[in-house]
Amino acid sequence: MATTRKPRLNTDQLRKGILAGERSVLAQAITIAESTLEVDRLITEQLVEQLLPNTGKSIRIGITGVPGVGKSTFIEVFGELLTGQGRKVGVLTVDPSSEKSKGSILGDKTRMEQLSKNPKVFIRPSPSNLALGGVTHHTRESVLLCEAAGFDVILIETVGVGQSETYVRNMVDFFLLMTLAGAGDELQGIKKGIMEMADGVVITKSERENIKASVQAMADTRNAIHLLASPASAWKPKVLAISALENKGIKEVWEMILEYQKHVQSSGYFEENRRLQKKKWLEECLESYFREYVNGKSFKDKKEKVLEKVMKDTLLPTDAARQLWNSLIKKRNLTAKT
Amino acid sequence: MATTRKPRLNTDQLRKGILAGERSVLAQAITIAESTLEVDRLITEQLVEQLLPNTGKSIRIGITGVPGVGKSTFIEVFGELLTGQGRKVGVLTVDPSSEKSKGSILGDKTRMEQLSKNPKVFIRPSPSNLALGGVTHHTRESVLLCEAAGFDVILIETVGVGQSETYVRNMVDFFLLMTLAGAGDELQGIKKGIMEMADGVVITKSERENIKASVQAMADTRNAIHLLASPASAWKPKVLAISALENKGIKEVWEMILEYQKHVQSSGYFEENRRLQKKKWLEECLESYFREYVNGKSFKDKKEKVLEKVMKDTLLPTDAARQLWNSLIKKRNLTAKT
Repeated sequence: MATTRKPRLNTDQLRKGILAGERSVLAQAITIAESTLEVDRLITEQLVEQLLPNTGKSIRIGITGVPGVGKSTFIEVFGELLTGQGRKVGVLTVDPSSEKSKGSILGDKTRMEQLSKNPKVFIRPSPSNLALGGVTHHTRESVLLCEAAGFDVILIETVGVGQSETYVRNMVDFFLLMTLAGAGDELQGIKKGIMEMADGVVITKSERENIKASVQAMADTRNAIHLLASPASAWKPKVLAISALENKGIKEVWEMILEYQKHVQSSGYFEENRRLQKKKWLEECLESYFREYVNGKSFKDKKEKVLEKVMKDTLLPTDAARQLWNSLIKKRNLTAKT
Repeated sequence: MATTRKPRLNTDQLRKGILAGERSVLAQAITIAESTLEVDRLITEQLVEQLLPNTGKSIRIGITGVPGVGKSTFIEVFGELLTGQGRKVGVLTVDPSSEKSKGSILGDKTRMEQLSKNPKVFIRPSPSNLALGGVTHHTRESVLLCEAAGFDVILIETVGVGQSETYVRNMVDFFLLMTLAGAGDELQGIKKGIMEMADGVVITKSERENIKASVQAMADTRNAIHLLASPASAWKPKVLAISALENKGIKEVWEMILEYQKHVQSSGYFEENRRLQKKKWLEECLESYFREYVNGKSFKDKKEKVLEKVMKDTLLPTDAARQLWNSLIKKRNLTAKT
C-alpha cells in the first residue's frame, strides 16, 4: 500500500532522506516500491535510477533454510557483531507466501527484538507473492534503496521452500544455507537442490547435546559438497557449525564471507556475477510485462474469443496463439523479424 | 528436418494419406510438424486444423519412469495386448535431451523390435529439446495426427527427469508412473514430485526373486499415495505390480485405465481436463512466441543497447524492460491497457 500515516514525501524528498540515511524515509520508499500501482512503479523507477550512483557498495548476503532452523536467531547475533564493528546492516525478508507474510510482519520484528532496536539496523519483512512474478516483487529495489541509505551489509532472508531461494540467489553476492544437524533423509533431500546454490553452509544449534551430531553433519555436508560440480565462482563452499544461543562460530561466518569476497573480487567473478544479475533482472521484468499484459483485461477478452473456437475444435491452439501474438506486437517488428 | 528421401507430399495429399491410415504419410507429417522452419509450422497448422474433426477419439496415456525401469519392455507387451484386441496403437517418445534422442531414435526402434513390426502399431521417437519451449516441441500435434490416422490408443513415453513429465502430463488423459521395487531413498525422492501427477503406479519386474520386494513396494506406494491430496479427477490412483518378462499384470494395467476412463467420463472430468489442456497449450504457445521474439535478432540488438546503459548504472533494469516492452507492443494496445 502506498499510503502511510505520515504525509507522503515527493521523489526529491525521498531521495534526500535516503541519502541522509533516514530509516523512516527508507521505509516509506520501500513501501512505495512494493506498491502494485503503476504510478508508484514509475516513482520507484525514477527514485532508484537517481540513486544508482550511490548503490552497489554493500555486500549482499542471502540466507536460506527451513522454518525453525534458526535464521532469525542467527541474524540477531550476526547483526550485533557487524554493527559492533561499525557496520550498518539492512535485513530484508522474502516470504514465498503472501498470506503467510501478512501474519509474519510483526512476527519477524518480534523475533529480532534486540536487533530491531539497534540504530544501525534496518529490518524490513517483505509481504511478497512470488506467484505474481518479478515486477510486483521489489526486493531488488529495496536492496538498492538500503545501499543508497548507507547500509553496507544487506541480509536477505528467505524460507527454503519453493522458488524463493532461486529468486534470492539471483540478487546476492553470497548465498548462505543454514541446516540442522541430525535432520532426517527427507530434509537432506530438500537441501540437495539448494546445496548447489550455496557458497557456505552453516549447521545451526551446535550446542550441548547437539555438538556430536553437528560435527557429523559438517563431515557429511562436506562430503556432499565434494560431489557437486565446481561453481562458476571457483569458490569451494565452506561448512561451519554455529551456536547462536552461545554466540559461537558467528565471527567465523563473517570471516568466511570476507574470504569469499576477497576471492571473487580478485578473480573478477564478483563484478561478473553482478553484471549477470542485472541482465537477469531485466529479462525477468520483461517477462513480467508480458505476463501482466496477457492476463490484463483488454487482452483477456481477445483470448476468450479465440479460446471459444479452440474449444469447438475449429481452431488449433497454436494457430490461436499466433493470431493473438500478431495482434500484440507492432507490425513493423513483425516485418523486421521475418 | 523437413526433407525425406521420398518426394514431399502437399498438404492435401498428407491429409488424405493420414485419413487413410497410411503410416508412411503419418511419419512424413510428423517430420514436418517437428521442423523448426516457419513454412513447415504453417503447413502443420493448416494440416492439423483440417484434421481436427477427426481427432480426440483416442485415449492418451503418458508413461514415465527412470531409465531402466522397463518402459519399453512394458510397451512392447502392452502394445501386443492392445493390438490383439483389434486396437491400433501409436507410441510417441518425448526425450528431454535432444542430444540423447539423436542417438536413441534407432535405440528405441530396436528396443521395441517386435512391436515395431506390428502393422497396427506406429512408433515414433521425438528428438525434441524442451529447453526451446513449446512451439518447437510438437508432441501434441503428433498426437492429433496419430488420432486422425485412426490410432485409438496413444502411448507417450518420457524419461522421469527434468520437466518432461509435466509437459507430458499436460497432454494425456491418464498418467502412468513406473517404478522399481526396492529402489533406494534417493529414487523415492525423485518419485515424490511425480507421484502426485500419477493416475496409476506400476511396480515393474515383479518376477522371481523380486516378488517379495514388489509386494512391499506396492504397500509402501499405496501408503504414500494415501498421504497425497485428492487429485482434481477425484480418482484414487491405483498401484499394480507387473512382470513384462512373464507377461503378468499387463491386462490389469489396461483394465485400470479403462476403469479410470469410465470414472472420469461419467464425472465430466475427462472432457474438462481436455479443455484445460487446450487452454494450456494455447498459453504455452503464446509464451513461446514471446520467448522466440525476445531472443530473435532484431530484438536482441535493441536489448544489447539498453543493457549497455544498465551495466553502466545509468539505467535501471526495470526501466530498460519497460522501454523494451513498449517498443514491442502495439501502441493502441498500450493505450487500451492503461
